[in-house]
Amino acid sequence: MKDLDQMYIPTFADVEAAHDRIVPYIHRTPVLTSSYINSLAGAELFFKCENFQKAGAFKVRGASNAVFGLDDETAKRGVATHSSGNHALSLSYAAGQRGIPCHVVMPRTAPQAKKDAVRGYGGIITECEPSTSSREEVFAKVQVETGAEFVHPYNDHRVIAGQATCSRELLEQTDGLDAVIAPIGGGGMVSGTCLTLSNIAKDVAIYAAEPEQADDAYRSFKAGHIIADDAPNTVADGLKVPLKDLTWHFVSNHVTDILTASEQDIIDAMRLTWQRMKIVMEPSSAVPLATILKNPDVFKGKRVGVIVTGGNVDLAKLPWMQS
Amino acid sequence: MKDLDQMYIPTFADVEAAHDRIVPYIHRTPVLTSSYINSLAGAELFFKCENFQKAGAFKVRGASNAVFGLDDETAKRGVATHSSGNHALSLSYAAGQRGIPCHVVMPRTAPQAKKDAVRGYGGIITECEPSTSSREEVFAKVQVETGAEFVHPYNDHRVIAGQATCSRELLEQTDGLDAVIAPIGGGGMVSGTCLTLSNIAKDVAIYAAEPEQADDAYRSFKAGHIIADDAPNTVADGLKVPLKDLTWHFVSNHVTDILTASEQDIIDAMRLTWQRMKIVMEPSSAVPLATILKNPDVFKGKRVGVIVTGGNVDLAKLPWMQS
Repeated sequence: MKDLDQMYIPTFADVEAAHDRIVPYIHRTPVLTSSYINSLAGAELFFKCENFQKAGAFKVRGASNAVFGLDDETAKRGVATHSSGNHALSLSYAAGQRGIPCHVVMPRTAPQAKKDAVRGYGGIITECEPSTSSREEVFAKVQVETGAEFVHPYNDHRVIAGQATCSRELLEQTDGLDAVIAPIGGGGMVSGTCLTLSNIAKDVAIYAAEPEQADDAYRSFKAGHIIADDAPNTVADGLKVPLKDLTWHFVSNHVTDILTASEQDIIDAMRLTWQRMKIVMEPSSAVPLATILKNPDVFKGKRVGVIVTGGNVDLAKLPWMQS
Repeated sequence: MKDLDQMYIPTFADVEAAHDRIVPYIHRTPVLTSSYINSLAGAELFFKCENFQKAGAFKVRGASNAVFGLDDETAKRGVATHSSGNHALSLSYAAGQRGIPCHVVMPRTAPQAKKDAVRGYGGIITECEPSTSSREEVFAKVQVETGAEFVHPYNDHRVIAGQATCSRELLEQTDGLDAVIAPIGGGGMVSGTCLTLSNIAKDVAIYAAEPEQADDAYRSFKAGHIIADDAPNTVADGLKVPLKDLTWHFVSNHVTDILTASEQDIIDAMRLTWQRMKIVMEPSSAVPLATILKNPDVFKGKRVGVIVTGGNVDLAKLPWMQS
């Protein structure tokens, strides 16, 4: 881990610059509500629908900020990343918008729909085994061979400043919030949320939501240092990756609490949103609602922003069909 | 069939009154676009998302207009209807908002999710066989027993004036359209669309989209008189009902053309919207996109409003899982 002195911590000025830079390439996604789900939760929930975002996920914000912030000389060698899916889609999309190559290392076990979509956006895939260690090893080779600029899925100040634009929009679209909750895997969205709220909405509590079966961020938060697991197993496949130094900085300094949910709670919450809100969200995006429904005392009577992080699912393999 | 003289034809003043009456009970649903689907269609499509409407379908507009337009004396005996699903949900919802009973006759073969949802809104169900003749017979008994006010799913001027508020919003939400397309079953939404556009946007072409396997409106349109089938079979289960005199008036006078799509085209279009737009739409709602993709010459380069009529599906039984 790098020292804090060596690590550039993005500022809110970086968020404003990111927003100006990426606005031609992203959607200002809508905020939806459901009176039925509010009645179940005993709270007012405002769903920020990044499942409607370009490339189907919030990650296009950070990816676009990284890609369009590169100088021309660096950009022409392209960008590269490893990702369990949505960052790969998003970086491929952003690189395509700039007309530069995008190299992607992704687990061979990633959903076929995500591989097809990456290729659909022009991304060049190299497969690895489904573990953090294999991914990092294969990636190092690809990077040496191509000379492409590494854009980490989350531990990158450009990416975090980009993700931070999401909660900035959410604040503009809602009339006061008591809390914001987002899923946590590597912590990119949660870090961006911390970056925005700690600057322009200090009174809003920040919750992170995590699968019980991949609860390394929860355990890290309680222990006071990063705990990383290799290859945890959860239906919320976007949340398997561990915190890194930059995201740990934000999580450890600004998050109010981390809440966890079981696999069944996640699947039930996902199905509930499809059924009642008529939106396609991926399992990772259902983790916040699952934790809200499981912890009614935490959110009772509150106005809560819920980040719906993405909607990229394999429609031929829905989790409630298999259980 | 009644004579035209005996039939009250709603006016645009009725649409404005309906909008004022129902606005507390409905959502002003968003209009979504997909650059990917536009590129497939070679046209600019503006999807009016009534799948996000209260009770999951546009039908709550007409149902609310009927329910809230009743005098107190009539209202207290409740309302009654027969419906293949969404009108039943919507009338139950509207009656619940007014605090009056709602009696629903629906086919025993209707999706369980729809029956559960009707009961969830407080509707009282009497089941019939899945044919128009059985439905009408059972309904007559229920109406005599309860004295409830009949609100027909579509052949009712109050209902059509309510549905007409949808394209009024769509016009406000888009910056000029060349055409609007909506699915056609009994013709309630299409009639409402005709009512609005023929008054305030006369240059906008009006298309109706129908399953090949339930193409009675198409054949009626070509023949110049109503042709009704008993119990056609299609995945678009909201579109099995025939035109009636009042909807025929609008369809025969104002529709530009009726286009049809095969079952596979409908399923493919439905899956495409779920995959790329991340919205849950029911098979009936996918028929317009299916016909657009099949008739590129009709829509090429045009700005087309597409009414997404509803999102009430049984998530345990998706059509691409069975094919």
